[in-house]
Parts: sequence; C-alpha cells; structure tokens
Amino acid sequence: MKRVLADFEEYLSKNLPIAKSFHPYFEKATGEMLKAGGKRFRPLLLLSVVDSYEPMLVENAYAAALAVEFIHTYSLIHDDLPTFDDADLRRGHPTLHVTYDEVTAILAGDGLNTHAFYLLSNAPLSSDIKCSLISELAQNGGIGGMVLGQAIDCFFEKKKLSLQELKFLHIHKTAKLIAASLKMGAIIAGLSKDKQSILYDFGIKLGLLFQIQDDIIDATKSSLEAGKTTNNDKEKNSFVNLLSIKGAKEEKKRLLEELKGDLLKIDNQRLTDRLNEILIKYFE
Amino acid sequence: MKRVLADFEEYLSKNLPIAKSFHPYFEKATGEMLKAGGKRFRPLLLLSVVDSYEPMLVENAYAAALAVEFIHTYSLIHDDLPTFDDADLRRGHPTLHVTYDEVTAILAGDGLNTHAFYLLSNAPLSSDIKCSLISELAQNGGIGGMVLGQAIDCFFEKKKLSLQELKFLHIHKTAKLIAASLKMGAIIAGLSKDKQSILYDFGIKLGLLFQIQDDIIDATKSSLEAGKTTNNDKEKNSFVNLLSIKGAKEEKKRLLEELKGDLLKIDNQRLTDRLNEILIKYFE
Repeated sequence: MKRVLADFEEYLSKNLPIAKSFHPYFEKATGEMLKAGGKRFRPLLLLSVVDSYEPMLVENAYAAALAVEFIHTYSLIHDDLPTFDDADLRRGHPTLHVTYDEVTAILAGDGLNTHAFYLLSNAPLSSDIKCSLISELAQNGGIGGMVLGQAIDCFFEKKKLSLQELKFLHIHKTAKLIAASLKMGAIIAGLSKDKQSILYDFGIKLGLLFQIQDDIIDATKSSLEAGKTTNNDKEKNSFVNLLSIKGAKEEKKRLLEELKGDLLKIDNQRLTDRLNEILIKYFE
Repeated sequence: MKRVLADFEEYLSKNLPIAKSFHPYFEKATGEMLKAGGKRFRPLLLLSVVDSYEPMLVENAYAAALAVEFIHTYSLIHDDLPTFDDADLRRGHPTLHVTYDEVTAILAGDGLNTHAFYLLSNAPLSSDIKCSLISELAQNGGIGGMVLGQAIDCFFEKKKLSLQELKFLHIHKTAKLIAASLKMGAIIAGLSKDKQSILYDFGIKLGLLFQIQDDIIDATKSSLEAGKTTNNDKEKNSFVNLLSIKGAKEEKKRLLEELKGDLLKIDNQRLTDRLNEILIKYFE
C-alpha cells in the first residue's frame, strides 16, 4: 500500500480547496491542516479495500478517500477550538486558531466539511455509486454519527458515564467514520450488501480499538511524542478514566484478539493480510 | 406558490435530522432554528423554478429545497456565534448558543451542513441529477462560495473595502447560495445549460439586492421588527456604510430595475410572473 498512499498524497496536494480572493490567507489556512499530514488512517482503510478487490479502481477511489480525510480533518479543527478541547498542537503543528484566529478555524472547518461532498460528487465513479458514498459519509460523519458523538462527549464531561454509554459515545464519535471508510471502499469495489456489512462491523470494532489506544496515548505520552496536545482528557469520559490504564490496556488487548478472529469472515486474502498488518502496525 | 410552501413546511417538519441518544437536548437543538421559521426565500426560489417548468416534479424537489435551507440555517447559527456577530436573536427566537451553549451551536451547525448532503443523496431524483445538485450546492455554499465570503467579511471588519471588493464579498457570502437555489431548480426541471446560466446570473443580482436590503434593515430597523439582532454592522463592510443609507437605497432601486429587465430573458411566463411577484413583495 506504500505506493498507493504516496499517490494519494500527491492527489491530495493537487485537490485542496480553491478559494481565490483578496483575503490574505484564507485559502492557505484551509489546506494547512491537511498538508500537515497525519496517519491517513481512514484513506488507508478505504483504499486497502478497493485495492484488494478491484486494484484497477484505486485511482477512481482517491476522491472518496480524500473526502473522508476532509471530514476527519474538519472535525479535528473544530475539536481543537477553545470552546472544545482548547488544544494548541495538532499533527505536530500549531492548531489553526493559534496560527490565525477562531473565525478562520471555524470557517476552514465548515468549508472542508462541505468540500468533501463537492469532491465526492465530482469523482470519476458512476452517479449511483457516488450517491451511495455521499449518503454513507453524511450519515456516519453527521448528526446521527460523529457530530452526535462529539456533542455527547462535551455534554457529559465531568459527568460519569456507564461503560455502555461510553461505548455508544465512541462508536459515534470515532468508530462510525472509520467503519464508513471501509464500507465506502466496499461500495466502490462493488461488493454485496452482506460483505459491506461485515466490513462496516469490523470498522466499528476497529474504531473502538483506535479510541482506546488514543485514550491510552493521551494519558501516557507527552505532547511532543504524540504530535498533539495530550493529557487533555482528565475530566473527559475516556476508557482510561473509566477502566484505569490497566483496564483500558486489557480491553484493548481483548478487542485486538476479537478483531483478529473477525478477519476470518473476510473472503479476500489480500484484504485479510492488509488489515492484519494494520492491526499489528498500529495496535500491537 | 402558497400551497407548495405549506407542503414544503410539512416536509421540513418530517425531515429534521435524527440523532437518538441519551443526550438531553442535542437532537432538539439541531431542529430548533429550522422550525423557528424564516422567509424560506431560497426554497421558494428553487421550488418556483421547478413548479413553473415541471409542476409534476415539485414533490421530488423538496429534499433539494430543504438541503439549501439546511446550509443557509447552519451558516446563520455559526454567524451568530460570539466569535462572529455575537447575536442573541434570530428568526424571532434566542440564538442556539444563548439557549444552550457554544458547543451545541457549533455542532448543530456542523451537523446541518453535513445533513444537507445526506438529504440530497437520498432524494427521489436520478443519481445524475443528484450529483449535479450536490456539486452545485457544495461549490456555492462552500470554501469557494459562502464560506469564503464570510471569511472576507470577518477579516475586513474595520478595514474599508472598495465597492468592487464589497460586491465580491457579498456575491460570495450571500448571492451564490441564492443563485444556486435557482440553478438547482433549473437542474431538477431539466433545463439546458444556457437556461441554467440565465437563472444563476439572475440569482447573483438578486442576492446582491437581498444583501443591500438586509444592510438597510440592519441600519434602520429595531431587533423586534426584524426578528434578529440589528444595528450590528457598524464596523462591517456594508453597502450602507460604504454608500450611506441614501446611496444604498439608490443602488437597491437601480438593481431592482435591472432585475425587472432581466426577467425578459426567461422563456417561461409562469416563472417570469413569480419572480416579478417576489421582486415586488420583498423589495419594493
């Protein structure tokens, strides 16, 4: 997947939003957090599915992978605002409201959210496929998905949730967009609804694993090591705060084993191998 | 158009975003500003075009009209935030950050932005049409359109713009979404690219007229009369501040006459009559 991801970065650099005007920096600001990097975890998942089933379609899938990254990036920009986490550092760079101001950060986020759907609607794919992708991304990234999770996260800060409620929160805030990435890959590759569901469900669990690991990083790593403001979740409903670091690490191990078992449900050996590699590389 | 607009209101009330969870009010908050009313100016334009050319398609067009209203409403919610205009009143109701808090207002706005595209992608229209509509809405409502206009508006507060720059600002901030509403109606009605362009260009001028009138209302009406916080643009680049109230009223009159002339370019008598009625009702 190294070459695919390198090509994706090139695609990204050529498809940043355009906003020509006499504003001294707005266009630059909208692209800044995207160019700053990040793991590209969601594009990697989407493109891994497409490349495993239909390698000829990978280039056609870049727009969809970038759209997911746009939604993810806008959510980070808004999540870092003073009203939310008040974080100064992201992807190893100062956050947008620190470099510029809150107005720029809110508007750059708004614009990236909208632009994800511009990209998708103009992707080199059939219109039927594009409508399915847009519906999936909007459903999982929107009011019934990521945005709802974020609202719950903020409202219940300093209020203790049960483990079940915490899972609901993180399924919405984090896992649904990760699950949508896999499902969108499946839609582009033309997989059946059943196979789409298997990958979506795998993504929900993978998203929970991702969030538990994120909580452990927040509690145990410095901002410098993590490339973002850490030690920031003390009053949040994190797996670490609910289960302790030891309990969170055990839950992480349990989920990782479960996911390895779930790999057997996938009928494509290339994808099984790739997802296994991802589990080992990011979570072991 | 009265019956169409009444049916549209009913469609709206049944198609608010769903966000079932244990959050005490987030779902309610996302629908509040939509249910609060407003002129429904953009849906009226879109549905007027469809109903004039293809009345049988009006019901299929409600989702598109509501999608535009979602984008418009999210932009009002974010524009009213303390970081922006710090307005307490909108559509005769307290703004969301006043009723709840800033987190809720930012997230409700984010969610409405995304949900517009969920609605559109699931509309009862062909996938080709839906992709065109999504592209149009995202282009005019996003980083190259409304969001850019808003960024320019904020950055150049307290800095004087030329009339040409002011027009660029308001074409982006206000007119492009209004123009897109007419064009989206034209796309649904299956009009040629040339006819789409005529309506889009009409919408750009109509949007400027709309903004000049809005500036005059802000400078001359009380908040109670306007149903929103007024007298708020003193340090903004408004037509009133650049041209004086008298000059703005003259520019409004000039644009209104120009638009009446442009009605002759439209080849559908029902639409000409309706747009003429709109010009008289809202701007005379």
